[in-house]
Amino acid sequence: MGGDHGPPVVAPGVGLALRRDPDLRILLHGDEAQVKAAIARLPAEVRGRCEVRPAEKSIAMDEKPSAALRRGKGSSMWNAIDAVRQGEAQAAVSAGNTGALMAMSKLILRMAEGLERPAIVATWPTMKGVTAVLDVGANIECDAEQLVEFAIMGAAFHHAVHGGGDPAHRPSVGLLNVGSEEQKGHEDVREAHRMLRELGLDLDYHGFVEGNDIAKGTVDVVVTDGFTGNVALKTAEGVARFIGAEVKNTFKSGPFAMLGALIASHALKGMKRRLDPGRVNGGPLLGLNGIVVKSHGGADANGFASAIRVAADLARSDFSAEIDRNMKRLTTAAAEAVEAAGAQGAA
Amino acid sequence: MGGDHGPPVVAPGVGLALRRDPDLRILLHGDEAQVKAAIARLPAEVRGRCEVRPAEKSIAMDEKPSAALRRGKGSSMWNAIDAVRQGEAQAAVSAGNTGALMAMSKLILRMAEGLERPAIVATWPTMKGVTAVLDVGANIECDAEQLVEFAIMGAAFHHAVHGGGDPAHRPSVGLLNVGSEEQKGHEDVREAHRMLRELGLDLDYHGFVEGNDIAKGTVDVVVTDGFTGNVALKTAEGVARFIGAEVKNTFKSGPFAMLGALIASHALKGMKRRLDPGRVNGGPLLGLNGIVVKSHGGADANGFASAIRVAADLARSDFSAEIDRNMKRLTTAAAEAVEAAGAQGAA
Repeated sequence: MGGDHGPPVVAPGVGLALRRDPDLRILLHGDEAQVKAAIARLPAEVRGRCEVRPAEKSIAMDEKPSAALRRGKGSSMWNAIDAVRQGEAQAAVSAGNTGALMAMSKLILRMAEGLERPAIVATWPTMKGVTAVLDVGANIECDAEQLVEFAIMGAAFHHAVHGGGDPAHRPSVGLLNVGSEEQKGHEDVREAHRMLRELGLDLDYHGFVEGNDIAKGTVDVVVTDGFTGNVALKTAEGVARFIGAEVKNTFKSGPFAMLGALIASHALKGMKRRLDPGRVNGGPLLGLNGIVVKSHGGADANGFASAIRVAADLARSDFSAEIDRNMKRLTTAAAEAVEAAGAQGAA
Repeated sequence: MGGDHGPPVVAPGVGLALRRDPDLRILLHGDEAQVKAAIARLPAEVRGRCEVRPAEKSIAMDEKPSAALRRGKGSSMWNAIDAVRQGEAQAAVSAGNTGALMAMSKLILRMAEGLERPAIVATWPTMKGVTAVLDVGANIECDAEQLVEFAIMGAAFHHAVHGGGDPAHRPSVGLLNVGSEEQKGHEDVREAHRMLRELGLDLDYHGFVEGNDIAKGTVDVVVTDGFTGNVALKTAEGVARFIGAEVKNTFKSGPFAMLGALIASHALKGMKRRLDPGRVNGGPLLGLNGIVVKSHGGADANGFASAIRVAADLARSDFSAEIDRNMKRLTTAAAEAVEAAGAQGAA
């Protein structure tokens, strides 16, 4: 029911995802009449792998998370997350209200041990491959401890999802700042930098990175607060769309340009596909006991299908076990380091 | 002396700027031997409009602003700014240490009446024209009052520089946030939003905008804190470079692509020029009694020439008088509004 468009975009997105992945099955939670009408247009084979779960209400896009929590039980969002808790679904995907999705996921699925709040991770295509950026919108204000948690979760995520099954893959982690020098940035960023350097966590910590390092692929994981991360992600999208429009206009600007575009059309189509912002839609909420993926509210059917693919890939990966293993190992190390520092301070 | 490269990049940049603008004259402050060696390669006509001003020291890129202030007198940066104060130069341009440049400019030129701290403004090409984004790095943490000041300075800047001399041009102003709803964002952003709505300032305030609104050109002026603005600017640059590399690779990917690129080469060159991130280099420091323009530390000669052009355009525009007029008018209105609100509260 979520997103800027609801069932008329979600249903075709589900159709695309099911066609691309023959082993996938989807439970659709929402207003029975609306959802059934929207999936009626899908081919029979694909529709056969959909199951509609009627929900009596849905969460509005502008509802406050606290209000959504109070009246949330029985809503389409609630039921989708609860299906994960009950083991009926392996992952939940929503294009709905981000704050409500996070609060509800936290309440229903609970946080993995040692973690405080979920973070949303976005996967960016870069010069060198893919970089995971987190948080991109779940936590507007973050203290140093949270940033360190994001580093741990982000590294585990990158290892599980983009590590190619190589146990020796150690993702490099950078902390987003306005410069690479030690004295740059605000207090929380500098404190997190000190902690990542000194706590002795089993992380390949690279140090500060800047905005241009994201697309450069300088590190595998970029850590930032949810305000900055969300602005960076949306700014990048806007720039990609702007340049896409410029390229299109360039090839319409005269007869030679049009002929050139025609001759190079195969390569240009490949480029368009590679750079489509919709392709990278789907931000998993990290830190929960279960998989929840946030799709952009404004995503089209193709974008929503990508979010479903991200959820399916995660569900099939070693991701949950990986996070669990890493957190246990790293929180122990952190506790020991803090204790040692305390003992030193007392001595 | 500043920037990642110093005179070997600054001097050719000066050369480009002088060739493009026959009425321009440049004072070069720095190490006499180094600067003279660097400009020796410029054509005689252009070199004749350069004057080298020997400085006994220069500020390092990683020097703390406080340290730079203490030992700054007599440095190349200090002398360049002081030439503006003395009326010998109409503007100062530096690719050096941002924090030091800001602190020194504030000390030497002082802030315009009613303003607290300078902001650096960046001009972005957008779908609709150009948008001014501020602050992009001068103020890492900003409270609500500062954000409101940025709105005032940004609108005056856009009016003077991009208003095309039309006195009726009223730039629209947006506040950067993670969503457009009232309850979104952190406290300072929400408080600034309330102030911009309720203070009765003579501004065309549009409300919250998101990252993707920058390149879309939704508003003429985007206001944000220096941390977020700097990350957004550098992220956008990184994305532009990444897509540029993708376009290049696409046209090398096979014989048809190469032929297409050859035929469309004229249009492609135009696009490359339009989208060159160096073209938009040069961020004026707003709020000072004088014009100081910050160039990217990593700018190439072409980028540095752009920063000089920005400074020259500003010096020739009605900008300083405009800011002054606006600030007087708006601070009066703000004071009246605050007074009225206080009277209401007391009643």
